[in-house]
Amino acid sequence: MSNTFGKQFKITTFGESHGPAIGVVIDGCPAGLEISREEIQTELDRRRPGQSELVTPRDEKDQVEVLSGIFENQTLGTPICLLIRNENAQAKDYDKLKDVFRPGHADFTYQAKYGIRDYRGGGRASGRETAARVAAGAIAKKILAGVGIEITGRVVQVGKITDEKDFVKEIEAAKVDGDSVGGVVEVIARGVPVGLGEPVFDKLSAVLAHAFMSIPAVKGFEIGDGFSCVEKFGSENNDEFVDKGKGEGGKGKVVIGTKSNHAGGILGGISTGEDIVVRVAFKPTSSISKKQQTFDRDGNEAVIEVKGRHDPCVCLRAMPVGEAMMAMVLADHYLLSRMSRL
Amino acid sequence: MSNTFGKQFKITTFGESHGPAIGVVIDGCPAGLEISREEIQTELDRRRPGQSELVTPRDEKDQVEVLSGIFENQTLGTPICLLIRNENAQAKDYDKLKDVFRPGHADFTYQAKYGIRDYRGGGRASGRETAARVAAGAIAKKILAGVGIEITGRVVQVGKITDEKDFVKEIEAAKVDGDSVGGVVEVIARGVPVGLGEPVFDKLSAVLAHAFMSIPAVKGFEIGDGFSCVEKFGSENNDEFVDKGKGEGGKGKVVIGTKSNHAGGILGGISTGEDIVVRVAFKPTSSISKKQQTFDRDGNEAVIEVKGRHDPCVCLRAMPVGEAMMAMVLADHYLLSRMSRL
Amino acid sequence: MSNTFGKQFKITTFGESHGPAIGVVIDGCPAGLEISREEIQTELDRRRPGQSELVTPRDEKDQVEVLSGIFENQTLGTPICLLIRNENAQAKDYDKLKDVFRPGHADFTYQAKYGIRDYRGGGRASGRETAARVAAGAIAKKILAGVGIEITGRVVQVGKITDEKDFVKEIEAAKVDGDSVGGVVEVIARGVPVGLGEPVFDKLSAVLAHAFMSIPAVKGFEIGDGFSCVEKFGSENNDEFVDKGKGEGGKGKVVIGTKSNHAGGILGGISTGEDIVVRVAFKPTSSISKKQQTFDRDGNEAVIEVKGRHDPCVCLRAMPVGEAMMAMVLADHYLLSRMSRL
Amino acid sequence: MSNTFGKQFKITTFGESHGPAIGVVIDGCPAGLEISREEIQTELDRRRPGQSELVTPRDEKDQVEVLSGIFENQTLGTPICLLIRNENAQAKDYDKLKDVFRPGHADFTYQAKYGIRDYRGGGRASGRETAARVAAGAIAKKILAGVGIEITGRVVQVGKITDEKDFVKEIEAAKVDGDSVGGVVEVIARGVPVGLGEPVFDKLSAVLAHAFMSIPAVKGFEIGDGFSCVEKFGSENNDEFVDKGKGEGGKGKVVIGTKSNHAGGILGGISTGEDIVVRVAFKPTSSISKKQQTFDRDGNEAVIEVKGRHDPCVCLRAMPVGEAMMAMVLADHYLLSRMSRL
Repeated sequence: MSNTFGKQFKITTFGESHGPAIGVVIDGCPAGLEISREEIQTELDRRRPGQSELVTPRDEKDQVEVLSGIFENQTLGTPICLLIRNENAQAKDYDKLKDVFRPGHADFTYQAKYGIRDYRGGGRASGRETAARVAAGAIAKKILAGVGIEITGRVVQVGKITDEKDFVKEIEAAKVDGDSVGGVVEVIARGVPVGLGEPVFDKLSAVLAHAFMSIPAVKGFEIGDGFSCVEKFGSENNDEFVDKGKGEGGKGKVVIGTKSNHAGGILGGISTGEDIVVRVAFKPTSSISKKQQTFDRDGNEAVIEVKGRHDPCVCLRAMPVGEAMMAMVLADHYLLSRMSRL
Repeated sequence: MSNTFGKQFKITTFGESHGPAIGVVIDGCPAGLEISREEIQTELDRRRPGQSELVTPRDEKDQVEVLSGIFENQTLGTPICLLIRNENAQAKDYDKLKDVFRPGHADFTYQAKYGIRDYRGGGRASGRETAARVAAGAIAKKILAGVGIEITGRVVQVGKITDEKDFVKEIEAAKVDGDSVGGVVEVIARGVPVGLGEPVFDKLSAVLAHAFMSIPAVKGFEIGDGFSCVEKFGSENNDEFVDKGKGEGGKGKVVIGTKSNHAGGILGGISTGEDIVVRVAFKPTSSISKKQQTFDRDGNEAVIEVKGRHDPCVCLRAMPVGEAMMAMVLADHYLLSRMSRL
Repeated sequence: MSNTFGKQFKITTFGESHGPAIGVVIDGCPAGLEISREEIQTELDRRRPGQSELVTPRDEKDQVEVLSGIFENQTLGTPICLLIRNENAQAKDYDKLKDVFRPGHADFTYQAKYGIRDYRGGGRASGRETAARVAAGAIAKKILAGVGIEITGRVVQVGKITDEKDFVKEIEAAKVDGDSVGGVVEVIARGVPVGLGEPVFDKLSAVLAHAFMSIPAVKGFEIGDGFSCVEKFGSENNDEFVDKGKGEGGKGKVVIGTKSNHAGGILGGISTGEDIVVRVAFKPTSSISKKQQTFDRDGNEAVIEVKGRHDPCVCLRAMPVGEAMMAMVLADHYLLSRMSRL
Repeated sequence: MSNTFGKQFKITTFGESHGPAIGVVIDGCPAGLEISREEIQTELDRRRPGQSELVTPRDEKDQVEVLSGIFENQTLGTPICLLIRNENAQAKDYDKLKDVFRPGHADFTYQAKYGIRDYRGGGRASGRETAARVAAGAIAKKILAGVGIEITGRVVQVGKITDEKDFVKEIEAAKVDGDSVGGVVEVIARGVPVGLGEPVFDKLSAVLAHAFMSIPAVKGFEIGDGFSCVEKFGSENNDEFVDKGKGEGGKGKVVIGTKSNHAGGILGGISTGEDIVVRVAFKPTSSISKKQQTFDRDGNEAVIEVKGRHDPCVCLRAMPVGEAMMAMVLADHYLLSRMSRL
C-alpha cells in the first residue's frame, strides 16, 4: 500500500468507505498558516454529493474535525490530522456484493492482491477516499492563495458532448437508461511563478500526471496541447519567448513569457510562469444497473446488476478533487523550490 | 532536484550531456540475478543514435561500464552503478547557445530556477540522460523475463500519419523543411500477473503516468482506451469477467480474466492479468533550424536558429526509453507485491 | 517536521498533548494479520500512568479507537488509523507556562524554530506522543510473535543504583526533594532470524539507534557491549562462530551461532540470529519543582518552578515505548528482508 | 539494501572494496555552491591510509573524479557524482577467505542474507565505502562553512587510555601482539544556529545517532553528557537559560543560550545554538592475526588467522568519517530548516 503523496507537503489518507471514518494526516505544512476549520469545511462541501439531481443522493454531511496541528487557527508546523466520520453507511446494501466482483471495479484485483477486502461499497478503493484529499487540498489552496496562485476546474466534455449547455441532458439520458457516461475535466492554475518542478523524475508535469491518474476512474492525462501536439510541426508548437512587460507593478525587470502556451506552462519539467493547463479523462462510472457477466470469489460465474446510489458521471464531483490534487502538487513544489539555490 | 525513481527497484541517474559522463545507480535490485555487461550494452545499443538517416548522426558509442553491484555476472544485492562516458562531445557547437533561451527547451526554466546551468547541449535536461534509464531498464527487463513478463514498444503515429509505411516519409518531409514532427508511442506489457500496483496514490496507472511523463518531450499519457473511453457508455466500457481456462498448463484453478481490455490491464490501480497497454504523446522536437523569436539571459530580444544534429522526431529513439520505464515500474511493483500479505 | 518512521511498516504519529487527540497511521502492514482492538488496548495500558505512586497520577484512560485498516479483526493491507482522545487535559495548569521556557524542555527550541507552539503541556514534544507509538507497536509485536520473535524490556539502572530492589527508594528520594533522576533501560529481542538489516546506511544497529534516540529524554544508545567494548582487545571482543546444534527441531542443517554475544546480535548491520541487546540512557526528567533560571518569550529573565504531575523518573513508563520501537524496527526489517534475494 | 542517507542533501554510495570503483551520488545539493575537485581531494586525503605506522600501509591514493553536477567550479543543482577508482587491489590475498567467515566481520551475515557476497576484502561491508562518505562530506562542510558552522573530531580514548600522549603506545602494543583495540571519537559542531532538527522521529540527536551508528565498527553513541547524565539529578542536569549578549556583533537582540551544555546542544530534538557534542564507541578491529574458531560456507568448522594490512585501531581513520557524517546531517537539516515556517 502507498497511501502517502507529496515530498514536503505530504499527505497520508486513511479509511474505508463504510468503516468508522476516513481522514488525512498532512505532514510538512509549515508553521504560521492561518486557517480555520470552516475554511476546510467549505471546500469539502463543494465535493459533497446530494447537491443536484445528477449526483448520488447519499447525504454524507461530511463534517471535518481538526484533530491536531492547528492551534488558535494557526498551523503549528506539526502534523495536521483531519477526520471525517462515515455516517449514513448502509452496509446492508452491500451484503449481496460480498462475494461478487463488479466489472470495472477493484473488487477482483483487491481480493487477488490482499486475499481479503472490505467489500462494503468499495472499501478503500471507493471514491469516498477523495473527500480526505479535498480536505487536505483546502490547506494547500490557502498556502497558494498567499502567493497569488489560484486554481479552477471545469468539466469540458461529457460523453461526446463538448457544449456545456447539453451536459445535463447527456447525463440524464444515461441515467434513465441505467447506464453511465465518461467526461473530461480541465484544471488550470494561474499565477504560478517560474521555477516549480524538480527534474528529472519529478518534473512538474510528471508529478501532476501521477496525482491526477491516482484519482479513481481516470484513464488519461495531458498537459497543454497534449495529444493534439503530435499533429503539429515544431515550428507551430514551440512557444516563442516574448516581453510580458515589467514586473512588480511595472517597476521591475522585464518579465519573459511565451507568446502562445502550447506547453501548458511547463518546460523541461519546470513551470514557465504561464498558466498550467491539464486535462484528465474519466471513464464512464463502472456502477451501472444493466446486467453484466462476472464471477464470484469462489470462481463461479455470476450475473450482476449494481443497484443503489451512484453517479452516472463522476466528473462533476471529481472536479474539486482535481483542484485539490493540483493544489497539493503546487504547494509541495512551491515549498520544494526553496531548496534550488544556496 | 529529484533524480531518483522507484520505491524498491530504485534508480538514481546523474550526468550532464556534455560533462565527463552520465550514469545510474540502482539500489534495491535483489541478489542472485544473472546479468552480464553485454546484456546491458545490447539494450543500450537499441537506443543509440546514428542507426538510420532519420535519427541524429552523432556517434555516441555509449559503452557501459559496470562499476559495482555485479560480481561474476550475478547481482550482489548491493547498489549497481553503470557508467557511460560522454565522447564526441563537441561543446564548441553550443557556445553560441550559452546565453540564448531556445524555445521549447528547458534553458529558460533551468536558468530561472537554479541561477546557473550547463548550457552545453541541454546539460541535465538533455535527452542523453535517458541512456542511463535504458541501461537500468535492461536489468529490470531481466528480472521480468524471469517471471514471464515481456515488454514491447512501437510507434503508432507520426504527425498525422498512423500508417507505419508512411512514417519515414513524414519525418523526412519535416527534416527537409528544417522542421520537426510529433508522434505517439505505444508500450505493451504481456504476462503481467494479477496484483501489481500499490493503491491509493501509487496505483500502477499513476506510477506509469509519472514514469512516462518524466521522459523529455512527453505531453500526454493514457492507459487502455484512455481519452476515447470518455465517449463510451459504462455498459460498453466495462470489461466483463470471463473464464480464461485453467492455469498451470490446464491443471490449475480457473483463471478469471476479462472479455475485453478497455481498462488496459489495470483496475483500481492494480494489474488484472491482462496486457498493460499505454500510449504517450511526444511533442515535435523543439530543436528546429527555422528562425524563432526569443530572449537572452540579460533580457535582450534575440532570434535563434538551432543548427546541429537533432532528431526531427524523437519517437524512434524514445521507444526503448519507454520500454525501460515500463520495465522499471513493473520490476519495482513486482518486488513490492511481496509485501501485500503477511 | 518528520513524523513518519519506518520504510515498509511505516508509522506516522500526530497530535499535541492537550489538543483533541493523538493517534497514528500505520501504512504498510500486510493484509491478513489477526488483531483485535483489545490487544492494542492491552499494550497501551502497560504504558498508562497512574499505575503506581512513582508515576504521574494523571488518569489518562487512553482508550484506543480503530478507525481503519482492520475489518472483522483482520488487517486489510490498507492504512490502519488508531486514535486516542485526550481527556482530563487541564490546560489551565499550563497557562503560566505560556511564555516561559522550561529548562531541559523543547519550549525554547520549538518557539525558535516554528515561531509558534502549543504551549499546553509540551504540545507535540510531550511524552504523550509516545502512546501512539505503543499502540502501533502492539501491531508490530503481533507480526513478530507470528514468527517467534519476542521482545522484553527492563530498567537496569536508576540514578547510580543498579540493584533493582533499590530503584523505588532512589526515585522516591528524588521526588521528595522536588528533583528527578535518570535511568537506563535495556531491551532484548529473542528469536530474531539471521539476515535482518539493510546495509550500509540502514544497518539494523543504526536504525535501532535512530528509533531509540527519537524517544524523548534519551541521550545515549549502545548495542551489545557498547561503550565497554572500547576497553577490550579484538581477541576478547570478537564472537567466535560455533555449532548451535541442528535447526528445525534437530532435523535441519547445523545452525551457526556465536559462542559469546559481545556484538549484541548484529554484525555488519545485519542480525546474526543471537539475541539483540540494546541499552538506552534516559536523562533525569526535566520537569522539577526546584527553582530554575530562564527566559520568557519576550527575552526577559524569569525564574520557574514546574509544578504539576510529573514522573520523577521516566524509565518506568518509557520501557513499553522502548519495546514498541524495537518491535517496529524489527517488523519493518522482517518485511524488508523479503527483498534481499530474487 | 539501503545505500542512501539524508532527506534533502541526500547521498547514495556504491561500490565494493575490490571492485572497479567506489563512489557517491549527491542529490539535493543546491545550485551555486563554489567547490573545486581539489577541495574534495584534500578532505579525502585526511582519511587516506598509509600516513603513519599505525594505520594500514595500503597506498590507496584515492584520486576523486567529479563526473557531474559541478560546472566551472559551481554546483548546478543537479546530482553530483564523485568517483574513486580502486587501485592496488590485491584480490588474491583474499582468495583464502572466500569460504571462511571471519569473526566480527559481516561475511556470515551477508552470505546468509543475500546468498552471495563479494568475498574480496569485505566487499560492500568494507570500511573502504566510507571514503565515498568523506568525499560527499567535503561538500557538506563547504555548505556549512558558508554559514559559519565548523566541525572538528578527535580521538578521546584508545583502549583504557584517555591521555592522548599514550594512544600510540597502546595501539603499538596491540599491533605487536597481533591484536587490536577499541576507541572513542568525539565530534563537535560549533556555530550551529538554533532550530535544526525535525521532530518527532528525525530529532537531530536521533538522525546523528543513525548517521554515526552506520559507520562500520561503531557500537555506541551518546550526545552531550550521554550515559553519564543518568547518574545526575534533574537539578544538576538541566541547562538553565542565560543571556549570551547581543547578537549581530552586539547590535541585535539578546541571544538566549544555556549556562551549561549537558544536553550537547540539542533540546527536544532541535539545536539550541550551543555546541553539538557527540561521542561514538568503536569496537576493536575485528581483523586480528590471532587464531580464531569459525565456520566455512559449507558448515565445516575452521580456524582462521586474518593476515594482511589492517588497522589495529580504526579510530584514527574513522575521525574524518565521523566529521563527514556530522557535516552531512547538519547540511541536510540546515536546508530542511527552510521549510519550518511559511
